[in-house]
Amino acid sequence: MCKACNYTIHGAQHHFGWDNSLLPVERVEPGSTILFHCQDSSAGQLGPSSVLADVVALDFGRINPVSGPIHVEGAEPGDALKVTIESFTPQVREGTGWGWTANIPGFGLLADQFTEAALHIWKYDAQSLAPALWGKEGRVPLKPFAGTIGNALAEPGLHSVVPPRRVGGNLDIRDLAAGTTLYLPVEVAGALFSVGDTHAAQGDGEVCGTAIESPMDVVLTLDLVKGANLKTPRFTTPGPVTRHLDAKGYEVTTGIGPDLMSGARDAVSAMIDHLCATRGMAPVEAYMLVSTCGDLRISEIVDMPNWVVSFYFPRAVFE
Amino acid sequence: MCKACNYTIHGAQHHFGWDNSLLPVERVEPGSTILFHCQDSSAGQLGPSSVLADVVALDFGRINPVSGPIHVEGAEPGDALKVTIESFTPQVREGTGWGWTANIPGFGLLADQFTEAALHIWKYDAQSLAPALWGKEGRVPLKPFAGTIGNALAEPGLHSVVPPRRVGGNLDIRDLAAGTTLYLPVEVAGALFSVGDTHAAQGDGEVCGTAIESPMDVVLTLDLVKGANLKTPRFTTPGPVTRHLDAKGYEVTTGIGPDLMSGARDAVSAMIDHLCATRGMAPVEAYMLVSTCGDLRISEIVDMPNWVVSFYFPRAVFE
Repeated sequence: MCKACNYTIHGAQHHFGWDNSLLPVERVEPGSTILFHCQDSSAGQLGPSSVLADVVALDFGRINPVSGPIHVEGAEPGDALKVTIESFTPQVREGTGWGWTANIPGFGLLADQFTEAALHIWKYDAQSLAPALWGKEGRVPLKPFAGTIGNALAEPGLHSVVPPRRVGGNLDIRDLAAGTTLYLPVEVAGALFSVGDTHAAQGDGEVCGTAIESPMDVVLTLDLVKGANLKTPRFTTPGPVTRHLDAKGYEVTTGIGPDLMSGARDAVSAMIDHLCATRGMAPVEAYMLVSTCGDLRISEIVDMPNWVVSFYFPRAVFE
Repeated sequence: MCKACNYTIHGAQHHFGWDNSLLPVERVEPGSTILFHCQDSSAGQLGPSSVLADVVALDFGRINPVSGPIHVEGAEPGDALKVTIESFTPQVREGTGWGWTANIPGFGLLADQFTEAALHIWKYDAQSLAPALWGKEGRVPLKPFAGTIGNALAEPGLHSVVPPRRVGGNLDIRDLAAGTTLYLPVEVAGALFSVGDTHAAQGDGEVCGTAIESPMDVVLTLDLVKGANLKTPRFTTPGPVTRHLDAKGYEVTTGIGPDLMSGARDAVSAMIDHLCATRGMAPVEAYMLVSTCGDLRISEIVDMPNWVVSFYFPRAVFE
């Protein structure tokens, strides 16, 4: 329960894909604070006791539900929806906070190299949000956020939830955490805002295609900036974004060449090689681990014709 | 003077471009500590009193000198050169620490949008390395590093210094700062290591093509890891990499689409628009400022077919 909330959106009030003809589940005044009971990105198909066969059996027609849509009174094309991200509370199942990370064949930065399904189930303290354990030695710091957060598109019809667009959606920006203020372009009357795909932790890139996927209760305040005419989303963070994981520095690998995608792939592959060599880890385990905490950065994008993409793995995970 | 150094490489002992037939300026044993008097990337063509006409008149045949090459005894192809980055001391000119940032036509991420030369001269305290002032309100935190650091290529002939390669070179990785340990692939006997292009500050991306370009004294220790068989450079940082600038959080803009380069361009353009709108800054000034302190990150690279590139500008610059 959220005492300061004006509205509650229940878990069943979700939809799959974006479609501006969907009826709003709520109509709210600008300035309203709303509690969303968000499902995880498997829409409950996976749980704390899931096994690999459950990943193989996933119904992809029920992937990435988003809670909403919310009609914000007075929102018009050209406005920005101002989303103040108030809080995230992971939902407890079977007595524990939990999440899943999977390699889903055909999905992920190195899909050609990792063709078999794989699953890692995380359990963590949903109250303290202390780092989640990885085997006996690893500890992944948690920082919950919503992977999918956005408005309906102007273009009619049903649009896949997978790609993010200028109105937001499946942005998977790991700094859209509590305290951040996000501005999203509005393309239709009422904005038709939805949110879901909550993650307990993710690195920049979400390289294996999944994060620590956890159902969560999310509190947001929705407001309007009239006539903002944003081209794409922008956001403001109230403070540092990496201090929960940077205390011990980083191991960093690089990819160098004329294509940023190849550079990113090379950098991540090199990190997987490094972790396998130094930690005795299976490649797919390293791939899933780094997706939850490793960051892709573009170190330089101007020294023609070769760019440098670097992949930063926080040493705190193993120290 | 460096009391702990085994060798000193003087400012005149530099070269332009990479060529494995160049005679070493020094032959050193593994484990040697070396002081390099590095010129700035204009090779002294610009100074604290330079004006715009000096940028227009730059001789590009004398851009980006690197100090060396150093022959490391026993280094062979397949080894890694282990470079312990000990310290950077900006050189004082006309009584001050200083640096330059320029928009050089034809060079930079938004070269098509910024076609006129521009120059910003920075002055800062070379001892304290307190943030460098930008106009009356801005303060850019400093963290010196070497933009160009690498070994000679196996391929014969003279190769441009501009692109980085798997042996390193013009990597422009802003975290190759004091305390970091860098591992570079060796392709020729002796490694033939050189360093230069010292920067007082730079954001991830170096988006306008230049950083705060300052001549510096650099102390490095060179050692070998036999048979490392690295594909590309990797490095280890001893601690956090952004705490000098992240205290107040970030303003962040995004670029969303199927091409990472377009996404990066869109994100940087959006930040320039944002700074111009909120700070009354000229676009080219914003472009040069963000090159020294704004970071390009790949927020997600898996939500087919659209990727998200984000550009992080540290709010501490103006707060």
